[in-house]
Amino acid sequence: MFASVNVVGRGRVGAAIAARLAERGIALRQDQPDLVLLCVPDRAIRDAAARIASGPWIAHVSGATPLSALNPHPRRFTLHPLQTFTRDRGAEQLDGAWAAVTSDSDDGVRRGFRLADLLGLRPFELKDEQRSLYHAGAAIASNYLVTLHRAAARLFAIAGAPPEALTPLMQRTIENRFQLTGPLERGDLDTVAAHLAALRAHAPELEAMYRALAEVTT
Amino acid sequence: MFASVNVVGRGRVGAAIAARLAERGIALRQDQPDLVLLCVPDRAIRDAAARIASGPWIAHVSGATPLSALNPHPRRFTLHPLQTFTRDRGAEQLDGAWAAVTSDSDDGVRRGFRLADLLGLRPFELKDEQRSLYHAGAAIASNYLVTLHRAAARLFAIAGAPPEALTPLMQRTIENRFQLTGPLERGDLDTVAAHLAALRAHAPELEAMYRALAEVTT
Repeated sequence: MFASVNVVGRGRVGAAIAARLAERGIALRQDQPDLVLLCVPDRAIRDAAARIASGPWIAHVSGATPLSALNPHPRRFTLHPLQTFTRDRGAEQLDGAWAAVTSDSDDGVRRGFRLADLLGLRPFELKDEQRSLYHAGAAIASNYLVTLHRAAARLFAIAGAPPEALTPLMQRTIENRFQLTGPLERGDLDTVAAHLAALRAHAPELEAMYRALAEVTT
Repeated sequence: MFASVNVVGRGRVGAAIAARLAERGIALRQDQPDLVLLCVPDRAIRDAAARIASGPWIAHVSGATPLSALNPHPRRFTLHPLQTFTRDRGAEQLDGAWAAVTSDSDDGVRRGFRLADLLGLRPFELKDEQRSLYHAGAAIASNYLVTLHRAAARLFAIAGAPPEALTPLMQRTIENRFQLTGPLERGDLDTVAAHLAALRAHAPELEAMYRALAEVTT
């Protein structure tokens, strides 16, 4: 399908993808590739696409950026690996993650799926017009998980408890398939009130977040 | 230290603790135990403690409930396993989790630490007056992680993306030691604005939560 790929950009995602393609025996080259895969920052995608000579397939790996950013190329798709990447790891970061594939042609979707398979990703199709909603979900799940951890670690530090104790708790919450336990599950409003009083006294900047999350939970 | 324990209450936590004590060769008995360990619901602790004849050590396993709930017993401590428990699993749920130990005597703290070690928990000392702040941190880390997952899964369902795709993303966010990636990390306000517009159109009940979390993150 794609025997050669020009991976443009070697940031966290581009580096992992290029390493995986090399592992799979795909030729990485700039001249006459079958596919140009843009792994550049979101805001650089339009310009990068406009500079590519027409001919090869073109794709980007951004979750937030619409397909139209690949104008004027007609043979195009997007493939967003639904994962958070770090420079400390390699191609194995792709294993087991899912990927959102979007195209305006059946051939584009099919090629996006095949590329995802090759990368070790589990593809699903995403409509271009649903992209912002999908990406908001991904940001809530991943970025705001970091926010919760920072907030909880801050409270632990103030309380004299070790912040590293939070990690097994958060891991098990996922392993237990997100079963809700604790005061909100029990309808224990006295404990919720005690939490709010403690936040007001020691970390008032977190009170609005706590309340907004409580409201969505119940 | 404690050769016999009366574990009162066999809910999710009590069942796991009783199973672990039995594994460790501790006699579980109601008559003349060295320790009465109350694993009853938070609101039942005071009454249960008041009904225990004086003599043995007494403890509870609640994170939210103060030490004074064990009145009038002078030999007392609390040991809160910082973990979320399910009935689907056994004593191994305790492995690797931390535990907050509180007492108003050095002997009580020492005994709480020894009991935690026996259970497979990593103990740390928590001042009774810091309990609400500590417990708010635990609730934010665990209960609100469930809330984030529910919110993200709802957006994925509306967008036509598979909610199960969120699990590898959330697991890796923890494995990567809570490194922040995504639009907030990049200062990409256009993407944040697109998220908010999508929430307003499709899931307006989540907009306030998104905003409150964004404010704490930045």
